[in-house]
Amino acid sequence: MLRLLLVLPLLGAAGALPAPPRLRRGAAPAAGPYLTRYLSQPIDHFGFDENRTFRQRYLVADQHWKKDNGPILFYTGNEGDITWFCNNTGFMWDVAEELNAMLVFAEHRYYGESLPFGNESFSDSKHLNYLTSEQALADFAVLVDYLKMTIAGARHSPVIAIGGSYGGMLAAWFRMKYPHMVVGAVAASAPVWQFGDLVPCGAFFSIVTNDFKKSGTGCSESIRNSWNAINHLSSTDAGLQWLSSTFHLCSPLKNLQDAAVLKNWLSETWVNLAMVNYPYKADFLQPLPAWPIQEVCKFLKDPRLSDKLLLQNIFQAVNLYYNYTGEALCLDVSETATKNLGQTGWYYQACTEMVMPFCTDGVHDMFEPEKWDFDAFSEECYRLWGVRPRPSWILSMYGGKNISSHSNIIFSNGDLDPWSAGGVTQNITNSLVAVVIPDGAHHLDLRSRNPLDPKSVQQARALEIYHMKQWIEEARHSH
Amino acid sequence: MLRLLLVLPLLGAAGALPAPPRLRRGAAPAAGPYLTRYLSQPIDHFGFDENRTFRQRYLVADQHWKKDNGPILFYTGNEGDITWFCNNTGFMWDVAEELNAMLVFAEHRYYGESLPFGNESFSDSKHLNYLTSEQALADFAVLVDYLKMTIAGARHSPVIAIGGSYGGMLAAWFRMKYPHMVVGAVAASAPVWQFGDLVPCGAFFSIVTNDFKKSGTGCSESIRNSWNAINHLSSTDAGLQWLSSTFHLCSPLKNLQDAAVLKNWLSETWVNLAMVNYPYKADFLQPLPAWPIQEVCKFLKDPRLSDKLLLQNIFQAVNLYYNYTGEALCLDVSETATKNLGQTGWYYQACTEMVMPFCTDGVHDMFEPEKWDFDAFSEECYRLWGVRPRPSWILSMYGGKNISSHSNIIFSNGDLDPWSAGGVTQNITNSLVAVVIPDGAHHLDLRSRNPLDPKSVQQARALEIYHMKQWIEEARHSH
Repeated sequence: MLRLLLVLPLLGAAGALPAPPRLRRGAAPAAGPYLTRYLSQPIDHFGFDENRTFRQRYLVADQHWKKDNGPILFYTGNEGDITWFCNNTGFMWDVAEELNAMLVFAEHRYYGESLPFGNESFSDSKHLNYLTSEQALADFAVLVDYLKMTIAGARHSPVIAIGGSYGGMLAAWFRMKYPHMVVGAVAASAPVWQFGDLVPCGAFFSIVTNDFKKSGTGCSESIRNSWNAINHLSSTDAGLQWLSSTFHLCSPLKNLQDAAVLKNWLSETWVNLAMVNYPYKADFLQPLPAWPIQEVCKFLKDPRLSDKLLLQNIFQAVNLYYNYTGEALCLDVSETATKNLGQTGWYYQACTEMVMPFCTDGVHDMFEPEKWDFDAFSEECYRLWGVRPRPSWILSMYGGKNISSHSNIIFSNGDLDPWSAGGVTQNITNSLVAVVIPDGAHHLDLRSRNPLDPKSVQQARALEIYHMKQWIEEARHSH
Repeated sequence: MLRLLLVLPLLGAAGALPAPPRLRRGAAPAAGPYLTRYLSQPIDHFGFDENRTFRQRYLVADQHWKKDNGPILFYTGNEGDITWFCNNTGFMWDVAEELNAMLVFAEHRYYGESLPFGNESFSDSKHLNYLTSEQALADFAVLVDYLKMTIAGARHSPVIAIGGSYGGMLAAWFRMKYPHMVVGAVAASAPVWQFGDLVPCGAFFSIVTNDFKKSGTGCSESIRNSWNAINHLSSTDAGLQWLSSTFHLCSPLKNLQDAAVLKNWLSETWVNLAMVNYPYKADFLQPLPAWPIQEVCKFLKDPRLSDKLLLQNIFQAVNLYYNYTGEALCLDVSETATKNLGQTGWYYQACTEMVMPFCTDGVHDMFEPEKWDFDAFSEECYRLWGVRPRPSWILSMYGGKNISSHSNIIFSNGDLDPWSAGGVTQNITNSLVAVVIPDGAHHLDLRSRNPLDPKSVQQARALEIYHMKQWIEEARHSH
């Protein structure tokens, strides 16, 4: 039971990147002005009994668009509010002028404002039934068709799909399944292979661990040792109380189960730090300094301290993540779990199509050992949603590693990003290109240009632009 | 209202080729021995709320299969009993030995024995909800995966999709949407473009007309003139009685509406004859002589006869189609309409995804003029099934004419076949190849070799085999 508590939050973190409301407030928008639009979409593209529609939100910025069939960069929205992605995908804004491109950001159904059944959307498995990647891709296809038909001068505009993380998977899949809609796709940090047994289930956490190992002596060791320290302390009431006060927790820990939640929350924090380990001050999941793992590791130099001293350091480390601005009065271990729609939706997707096996062994990684247990996972999904995951479907649907007959997709991955474990990091064909960014965390290439950008991400973006221009050229010639 | 009666039966004929029970009894099987198997399939591949399964039937013949990853020819079953298609796709049986191939014939859900809800499958729009091409393709994908995983030596078997008519569309779409599952597809007489405004709505009936025009002087003119003759006679009770007795109808015509049914039935008969205008005695839709339209036209030499004499000749003509064996006691104008599951299912598909616009003008064709009226069609669908067609969805889904980024599909079409109007009859790329069979009716190339085969179909089959061997070679090299 306890171990299952671990599984879901990790899957939640998976591709997660949902937009906690407080983030949106704080984020400095990389985006220029855009128009907010809505398109009426069938709730069910794949059946005709449910004939109702819902409003899909999308954002349009055409300041730089060449009206005579200039290209359209189409962001395939993922599990969150589309305005947040719009503000955090500076790359598109940066290249719009150079490509004379219109920008479109399409919101994924069941996220942000695009709720098929309004407030009822998450009420039960009946209402959640239309939350799948296939339905989302169908929304995109209908939207692209609609834009080309209704925007004067867009009829023959080449469309390029762009997305990051789960949105990157969608961008790649959109090109794979609807190549008549998009001339190519930039799939940034898209773990398209984090399914079935395509990659080792432990690779993800071993990348997280390496990030910490490289960022300071004793750092990953300190974290590895912290779990037993917590286990020791949480075996007594006094210890639980000490932990609650040391970690400034908003709700005190009462039992072993609460202690497990604390450990999950810590694990998630380390994972999140690995994802946003950017080379400059940024505010993606949280406001953070440049190279935040290096900052965190400054607190974690000595793994051989006593339990209490070690955990006091651990607190300093996570406090940097959750409270860099110094505004937090207490830390809330339940916060990232289920509070916002984005996560609720993603948990459902993880429990149905997006079954990503993860595991840890405590040897190749700094986490408590935890096997991947599909049966227990399935039980938990059934308990939560009344649905059973179908782990092999996504492989049948999207082809697993057997994707060489597709074309015009760039898969970019940062070596620092744990999601690169499930990504395409080697060229498959001339037109299924892998771009590796040694100094990159989670889709660094999709962020705005920054003076502190490492050379590798500048090169990655240049290559992406080169290919996009090629796709646009090809499309022009085929007319 | 009357005109709508026309539309549906024609759509029924569309790709129809359902298997009336009496046909199966009479057909001389081209097939060798096969095993009948069943696979448990999710009723809904695209949603997780409906978690039940059904048994999909498929047939396997592995007499000629090379067990060490020899190829698999996979028939993508269409709207009818799979055993009937198995017995009418002699081409696959003919090439099995040459290719060392296993044959698999997969039944399409909602046809034959593969009924998701048993006898309830057609009871209402709720039960019919899972009858779509996407669900059928997903069944095929899951089945191919299953075969490769469970049959020893099939793990790396290259799979080639083969189908005719709607099954040909499915074969092409299967390669387009699941290229990781099949190395190529032979799509015979597949009207993939009989949608939206991709082709003129009248082209289909003008090909039917040409078939009759070329098969005898006065033939198409006689048919063109027959409609007014029927209209004149059906305006009086005596005329209706005369028509009933002249056409040996099982149920006498009572009013104008019945007369409209008679006209539909005649139209369908001409269409069916155009589809099965084979160069040898055959028994596909009906037992018929070689070049049956020539035989029919022998009765229809003089278009300028009086109404009654003209219609007596028309009767002789249709009687050849329905009663070539001389066993029929009377002719049943309702017979082809809705009596078997195949047609019920196809009507539903025509009313949802497979919206094929047809029209006639009486000038470029020999039929009564009838415009394509989508709104009336939609009303009729709503009345019949409680569903509304979505005519643009199929274009968004499968790309319409914009399919050049796919590969390894052969589209074969016979010039005699009205369905070639909606087919791909010119090469699109080096690997999207059009094969035209000037003397071919509906997927003649998929039929068994016959001494009377015209050269053109022999060449078509040779080309198909050539490409199949290439695909198999390529697949082998990529391993």
